[in-house]
Amino acid sequence: MNKMEKKEQLYEGKAKKVFATDDPNLVIVSYKDDATAFNGLKKGTISGKGVINNKMTNYMFGLLEKAGVPTHLVKELNDRETLVKKVSIVPLEVIVRNVAAGSFSKKLGIEEGTKLLCPTLEFSYKNDDLGDPFINDYYALALGLATKEEIDLISKYAFKVNEFMLDFFKKLNIDLIDFKIEFGKTSDGTIILADEISPDTCRFWDSTTHEKLDKDRFRRDMGGVEDAYAEIMKRLMGE
Amino acid sequence: MNKMEKKEQLYEGKAKKVFATDDPNLVIVSYKDDATAFNGLKKGTISGKGVINNKMTNYMFGLLEKAGVPTHLVKELNDRETLVKKVSIVPLEVIVRNVAAGSFSKKLGIEEGTKLLCPTLEFSYKNDDLGDPFINDYYALALGLATKEEIDLISKYAFKVNEFMLDFFKKLNIDLIDFKIEFGKTSDGTIILADEISPDTCRFWDSTTHEKLDKDRFRRDMGGVEDAYAEIMKRLMGE
Repeated sequence: MNKMEKKEQLYEGKAKKVFATDDPNLVIVSYKDDATAFNGLKKGTISGKGVINNKMTNYMFGLLEKAGVPTHLVKELNDRETLVKKVSIVPLEVIVRNVAAGSFSKKLGIEEGTKLLCPTLEFSYKNDDLGDPFINDYYALALGLATKEEIDLISKYAFKVNEFMLDFFKKLNIDLIDFKIEFGKTSDGTIILADEISPDTCRFWDSTTHEKLDKDRFRRDMGGVEDAYAEIMKRLMGE
Repeated sequence: MNKMEKKEQLYEGKAKKVFATDDPNLVIVSYKDDATAFNGLKKGTISGKGVINNKMTNYMFGLLEKAGVPTHLVKELNDRETLVKKVSIVPLEVIVRNVAAGSFSKKLGIEEGTKLLCPTLEFSYKNDDLGDPFINDYYALALGLATKEEIDLISKYAFKVNEFMLDFFKKLNIDLIDFKIEFGKTSDGTIILADEISPDTCRFWDSTTHEKLDKDRFRRDMGGVEDAYAEIMKRLMGE
C-alpha cells in the first residue's frame, strides 16, 4: 500500500473519477469540483468542493467504521484523492429522510421542514436513462438488483448511518434533513458503504437559522454555495 | 337485513356510488358504467360494466372469504347494487404485479409481458390532487396513513389474494398480470378487503393469445372493450 500509483481511469462520474491501482482489490477515487443537478440537466462548478467532499467523506466514513458500519475507505492520499476498496456498486440509491424536503415535499404536498413521524428509507434504481426512478424492496428483488439478505443489510446500515449522523450533526448545530448513500460489494460479496457523504449528498440545515448548508444552494441558485460547503467543513473539522 | 333500503348518497367515485342504509354499519355500493383513466383525464362509458363489476367482485370476494381474506361483502341486492360493511378506506392503493406492464414497464424500461423474478407489492397514496403517488411502507408510516401492524396485515392479505387469483384465473386460461385492491377499516378497527376486483382493477391476458381482457382496451383505445369484459364474465361464471 506504500506509494500507491494511479493507473488507468476506470470510470468518470458526475463528481468523481475512479482509477485502477497495482492492487486489483483497490482503486483511487478522485473528487472533482463539477456539480450537476436534476439528473445532469443543470451543470456547474463549486470551487473547492472536491477537496471538501473528499475530506468530509473520509472523516465520516472513519467515524462510521467505528460505529459498526463497514466502508470502502482505506487511506486518504491527498486533498482530492483517496484509496478505497474496489467494489461493484449495488444499483440502488439509498435515501433516508428525517424532515420533508425536495422531491418528497413536492410529490406528497408536504411543506419543506415538516418533521416526519419516523425516518423513512427508500430506494431509487440507479439508472440515468430512466432518471433514477423511485422503487421499493419488491421491485429491487423482482428486477434482480439485490438479494433479500443484501436489502435487509443495506436497510440496517442505512438506519445506523442516520442514527449516528443525526446525533453527530446536532452537536454541530446542524439538522440532518435527509441524505443519499450507496453501497458496494467487494470481490468476496461483502456489502460495504461506498460513494460519499458530503453536502452534495446530504441536506444540512443550521439548527438555529434553518439556513441551507448544502447543494440545494446550487440546485436553487441561492448563492453562497462555496461558503455553505466551507461552513460545514469548519464545523466538522475546525478548518 | 331484510328489505335494506337506500338512504342518502354518501359518496360518488369514478366508478361507484355509496349510499347509507338504516344500519350505520352497512352501506350500499352501486356500480356505474362510467370509466376513467389516467387519473380522470380520459373519460368514457363501458356499457354493462357496472353489472359485470358488481357480480364479478361479489363472486371473487366470496371465494376470497373462504380462502381466509376477510372482505366487506354482505349481500348482492341486484345487478348493480350490493350491501357491504361500512368502512373507512385506508388511503393506500395496494398493487401486486406478476408480469411487467403499464406504468411499471414505462418507468423501468422493461418490456410489457416480461415475467418478474417474484411478485411485487407496492402502495400508492390515494390522493387525486397529487395523482396517487407511488410511496413505500416507510412513507405510509411517516405520513400516518397506516400503522405498522396494518401495513403488515394488508401486505399479507395482498399476497394471499394474488396467490389465490393466479391459480384461479390460470384455470380459466387467463394470466393475472397485476391488480389493484383497497382495504378498509370497520368501526371496530378490523382491516378487510373493500372496493372491487374486476377488469377495471386487474390486468387479465388470455394465456394462449395474450389478448388483453381488461380496462387497457379502454385506456389505449383498442376497441372491443365491452366484449373483453363479457369474455371475462363468461369464463368466470359461465354467463
